[in-house]
Amino acid sequence: MAKQWIDRADVVLRADGQRVADLDTSSTPGFDGGKREGKELLAERAQVLSVLQEKLFAHGRTGGQRSVLLILQGMDTAGKGGIVRHVIGSVDPQGVDHASFGVPTDEEKQHDFLWRIRKRLPAHGQIGVFDRSQYEDVLVVRVHDLVPQAEWEQRYDQINAFEKQAADAGTVIVKVAMFVSLDEQKNRLRQRLERPDKYWKFSPADITERAYWPEYQKAYQAVLDRTNTDYAPWYVLPSDHKWYARLAVTELLIGALSTLKLDWPPANFDIAEQLRRLDES
Amino acid sequence: MAKQWIDRADVVLRADGQRVADLDTSSTPGFDGGKREGKELLAERAQVLSVLQEKLFAHGRTGGQRSVLLILQGMDTAGKGGIVRHVIGSVDPQGVDHASFGVPTDEEKQHDFLWRIRKRLPAHGQIGVFDRSQYEDVLVVRVHDLVPQAEWEQRYDQINAFEKQAADAGTVIVKVAMFVSLDEQKNRLRQRLERPDKYWKFSPADITERAYWPEYQKAYQAVLDRTNTDYAPWYVLPSDHKWYARLAVTELLIGALSTLKLDWPPANFDIAEQLRRLDES
Repeated sequence: MAKQWIDRADVVLRADGQRVADLDTSSTPGFDGGKREGKELLAERAQVLSVLQEKLFAHGRTGGQRSVLLILQGMDTAGKGGIVRHVIGSVDPQGVDHASFGVPTDEEKQHDFLWRIRKRLPAHGQIGVFDRSQYEDVLVVRVHDLVPQAEWEQRYDQINAFEKQAADAGTVIVKVAMFVSLDEQKNRLRQRLERPDKYWKFSPADITERAYWPEYQKAYQAVLDRTNTDYAPWYVLPSDHKWYARLAVTELLIGALSTLKLDWPPANFDIAEQLRRLDES
Repeated sequence: MAKQWIDRADVVLRADGQRVADLDTSSTPGFDGGKREGKELLAERAQVLSVLQEKLFAHGRTGGQRSVLLILQGMDTAGKGGIVRHVIGSVDPQGVDHASFGVPTDEEKQHDFLWRIRKRLPAHGQIGVFDRSQYEDVLVVRVHDLVPQAEWEQRYDQINAFEKQAADAGTVIVKVAMFVSLDEQKNRLRQRLERPDKYWKFSPADITERAYWPEYQKAYQAVLDRTNTDYAPWYVLPSDHKWYARLAVTELLIGALSTLKLDWPPANFDIAEQLRRLDES
């Protein structure tokens, strides 16, 4: 009858001192149950998340200036899309602003790398979700030498300053780095090649990128070492088990929203008077 | 054991010849079950909608140029938000672009009334959702004389031309007008005044607007009479029963997506070759 627990995901998964190369991507830190228990708990906790999200939205509608930003990073097949579908999918779409950042467009290239990111910061009361983010500019860009090192080296500090501004303006930032093993990625890519309903998710480049695995690990390590801050902490998520990753992100969001200590906004009108007006209407 | 049906919602709810003033807002056209059956069927049909939505999204990712736009209109408390939460909430947030149109901002007022609308047309592969829309500019604007009649009179044709363009560009447009009775609205407003978790949804102006009910009915009638087109049809939704409204919109979206006859996109790569590359990687 012992309840599986994970509600201190914000402690359990903190990136402090984590070595990407040493991570057991099949582990389920903070949770001692299996898939079935994990799914049951997720269904339950999704309700908690949904209520917290509605309170955030309610505050945004009544002058509150807080918001939440979930940044998802991870190699291909790590499960970012599944998080959006199965975690973010459990809250009201009215309160969600989802942004997916791909290869920069021509217009985006005419600006600094944070230009397109800044534009998608969540409005008051919203949960913003970044599927990939400013971190691509120190990940794929670094691995493939897309800009000179002197340029990307500066970006870590620039990102920190940017996130500090956003946090000071009222946004609670939660950054999640999802990791699967090289073998698990192979399994998932094979699925995309074997199932006609998944062909569309496959790109030959995904296989090409596998050759750069050690370079990506190094680039992720640098991200964790240089941009894991109090105001925008990184969480390291072992993601071989999809059910676990979804549960853990749910808990991280519950934790982030809980720090806001929001309750339903009070009435900013005289209730008795309005009830009288309503009766007469 | 007879299955309740509603799967021809696109026929049942067509606005052709509908008189707003005569509508029975507590009816459930096309469905002969009650609340319990309705909720059960909704859960089932949400799965169908979800698969169709994913196919649309997959096509968008592989060069397809189709999209869907759901336009929701209705008086305060008609249940637009509930549709977003309970119908749109059942599909993948990655494939949803939700836009809520309130009182125009100063910047928006510096442009024609369709400027802000145009910017939010859904991208390829997306389901766009407009919570209120261009129709506010011939509804609240008309009822309250916010612009001269000569100006709003032109807007019906302008809206038709705009929607024709969008439809020609590949967007399937579904317009839903939600109607509750004056009494049901009173009940719902009273709830917002009696439940602390709903205060934030209430505005004293909502009561003021009740005095304009006949004018709004007339304005809605004009919308139905003048903008109900083959390429962007209106559906009239009796909405006193929330469960029914949600089920009906689910069916309308299933119908809209079904007209696209989408299947999973074929592989645009040599599967055997990629499997070989993957094995070697």
